[in-house]
Amino acid sequence: MTITLAEIEAARRAIAGAVLRTPMLPAPRLSALTGAQVFVKYENLQATNAFKERGALVKLLSLTEEERRRGLVAMSAGNHAQAVAYHGRRLGSPVTIVMPVTTPFVKVAATRSYGAEVVLHGETVEDAMERCVMLAQTRGLTLVHPYDDAQVIAGQGTIALEMLEDEPSLDVIVVPIGGGGLISGNAIAARAVKPTISVIGAEAQLYPAMWDALRNDHLPIGGPTLAEGIAVKNVGALTLPIVRDLVDDIILVDEAHLERAVNAFMILQKTMAEGAGAAGLAALLAKPERFKGKKVGLILSGGNIDPRIMASVLMRELLREGRIFSFRLTIPDRPGVLGQIATRLGGLGANILEVNHHRGLLDVPAKGAKLDVTVETRDATHAREIASGLAADGYAPQVIETGEM
Amino acid sequence: MTITLAEIEAARRAIAGAVLRTPMLPAPRLSALTGAQVFVKYENLQATNAFKERGALVKLLSLTEEERRRGLVAMSAGNHAQAVAYHGRRLGSPVTIVMPVTTPFVKVAATRSYGAEVVLHGETVEDAMERCVMLAQTRGLTLVHPYDDAQVIAGQGTIALEMLEDEPSLDVIVVPIGGGGLISGNAIAARAVKPTISVIGAEAQLYPAMWDALRNDHLPIGGPTLAEGIAVKNVGALTLPIVRDLVDDIILVDEAHLERAVNAFMILQKTMAEGAGAAGLAALLAKPERFKGKKVGLILSGGNIDPRIMASVLMRELLREGRIFSFRLTIPDRPGVLGQIATRLGGLGANILEVNHHRGLLDVPAKGAKLDVTVETRDATHAREIASGLAADGYAPQVIETGEM
Repeated sequence: MTITLAEIEAARRAIAGAVLRTPMLPAPRLSALTGAQVFVKYENLQATNAFKERGALVKLLSLTEEERRRGLVAMSAGNHAQAVAYHGRRLGSPVTIVMPVTTPFVKVAATRSYGAEVVLHGETVEDAMERCVMLAQTRGLTLVHPYDDAQVIAGQGTIALEMLEDEPSLDVIVVPIGGGGLISGNAIAARAVKPTISVIGAEAQLYPAMWDALRNDHLPIGGPTLAEGIAVKNVGALTLPIVRDLVDDIILVDEAHLERAVNAFMILQKTMAEGAGAAGLAALLAKPERFKGKKVGLILSGGNIDPRIMASVLMRELLREGRIFSFRLTIPDRPGVLGQIATRLGGLGANILEVNHHRGLLDVPAKGAKLDVTVETRDATHAREIASGLAADGYAPQVIETGEM
Repeated sequence: MTITLAEIEAARRAIAGAVLRTPMLPAPRLSALTGAQVFVKYENLQATNAFKERGALVKLLSLTEEERRRGLVAMSAGNHAQAVAYHGRRLGSPVTIVMPVTTPFVKVAATRSYGAEVVLHGETVEDAMERCVMLAQTRGLTLVHPYDDAQVIAGQGTIALEMLEDEPSLDVIVVPIGGGGLISGNAIAARAVKPTISVIGAEAQLYPAMWDALRNDHLPIGGPTLAEGIAVKNVGALTLPIVRDLVDDIILVDEAHLERAVNAFMILQKTMAEGAGAAGLAALLAKPERFKGKKVGLILSGGNIDPRIMASVLMRELLREGRIFSFRLTIPDRPGVLGQIATRLGGLGANILEVNHHRGLLDVPAKGAKLDVTVETRDATHAREIASGLAADGYAPQVIETGEM
């Protein structure tokens, strides 16, 4: 089965007005960070905050009246679920979504909020998929596969058409890889419109399913990743040959680069990327020499990141930069000492965030105490000045958790 | 001095290609939240992440070759400083920025990174402004005022031209008010292009300078605000009459609404707004009945929010929603009790984030202890279920800091 540019152009006409034509904009601060000339395609601005609506809607629109009336079923704990639910409701089609029982409640609630029936089944996505196939058969529902479907692939490919329309001089696009639907559609579209363009995949190092399939490699697959949206163990039967033919290379991105990329999108570009959505930028951070000076289009594929993870990424980066700085002092346990230290820290320009006393530790003299202090600093240099200042006063600070200072 | 639509249109031609023509896009999840039909103009996507570049660049381009060669001076601790520094360097003009000595180091560093000389002077912006005027005179520099300047006002007004071009059917635009430059330019442009449009200002309740000036009111001014970008004590001599003539109303927004708006931009729209940038959305949240069903254009004026504040806004919202839930238990102080409680919490679906023992409290029996536990829950209902479950087991949990549960 081949998917052609004409089909992707038809998909674009089909979804026009119902799916946002997202902006692609230059990102000068990400360019300064990476050395490439970076453009960002903001798929996180879609109604459900991810690109999945494109493929899902093309699939829905390809169905007969009777099929739509009977309804849709899909297996997904994430963006695909919300995309099918959102457009199913919009078009009056009943939607059933199967999710593993371990799915976080917020994702269940988000999908229900679009009017879908959620069936929780199985410990793994494989178990859930089995139930999904079973429901399709017994209830006569149409299964909307998240990536291994020609209509879905054609829908995702509409992104590259818009990118090259906005910026025909792009040298390369970098696209996250999970099951391969997003990169397949966009590789077909981009190479058809501009044969000289390079298409690079960004895959999570913990889930190198496409890498392994292409290279007959056996890198291990599994583990907790920030990029759960592309944490896929099996690539598609349709997508694999397309990726083999049209994708120039895959860059595997580790968790540290994914985290840095999520943070850079927030701090430098003022936009929220989920881990999978930041995979393209992570690839630029991992292999800057591959992209130096080139016009690079990144697909920021989705922005659905948990607020607690987001807060934690922000705080961890401040720790790494030394802007939050924790240290332990051994102090005599008598009145007035904390006042002296706090005053001294004020004089050094440190803003105290947290103080904890410990008295029960055996390496402290019986009349001493340990004081754990966390302060906010201007930067790593300032943090070192504060440590030196306290050392000069005889407090011998031990640095705790300073990250990469 | 009057500023006309023709001047704003000329300003738009002058800055084309050097300042981003930012997208304005529908925000369906903010519409669902507020009951209005919300469109967001993303000025936080500018190179320096705020709208200030528009006015600053128009001013720079209005100078003679000789004036540009001599250089520019501006007083600002925020977005205006970066805008003048960025475009000054781009056009080869030396830039001096005066900031109060209390300015956070990150803002000094950000401005220096654009090649500007930073002069730290004075405790207040008034003191810094005095030095700025003095430097303009003694060094022959051109002072670029952040708002009380016809060129600057014309530059800011280019935003409304773009908004009405993208969505001519807007009923109302909501614009943050500090000194009044942004709303003046945009009120002139919007009312000239579409006389029936309503222009509403959003001003911080702690800094109601424009409100007081317009109404001869004497609401107190001052205090720490999330919206430091519009925390202005004196409005402009140029801007005040324009606002009086063309702005329909001002809505004062308190800190709670500003915080909710910053959070909603992050969670629902996946974009970063600084407090001042979220003032328009805060006004919708404060007075939803005023905007119900209307097509509302919000100027998201800037995204330069401190990462630590951002993390704190995220965590506080999770607390408010009951998704992070802290409680204190009185337990017998013997081996195995923590294990029982942790197992019970696991059974209730609570994810433990933090545990603290307290033994030295006098309201605890000598052989007892207090246990402070923080867990992650699915939502407020789940938090209440957890509390009930523990109460049924006889632990009598006292809730700590549950916000608005």
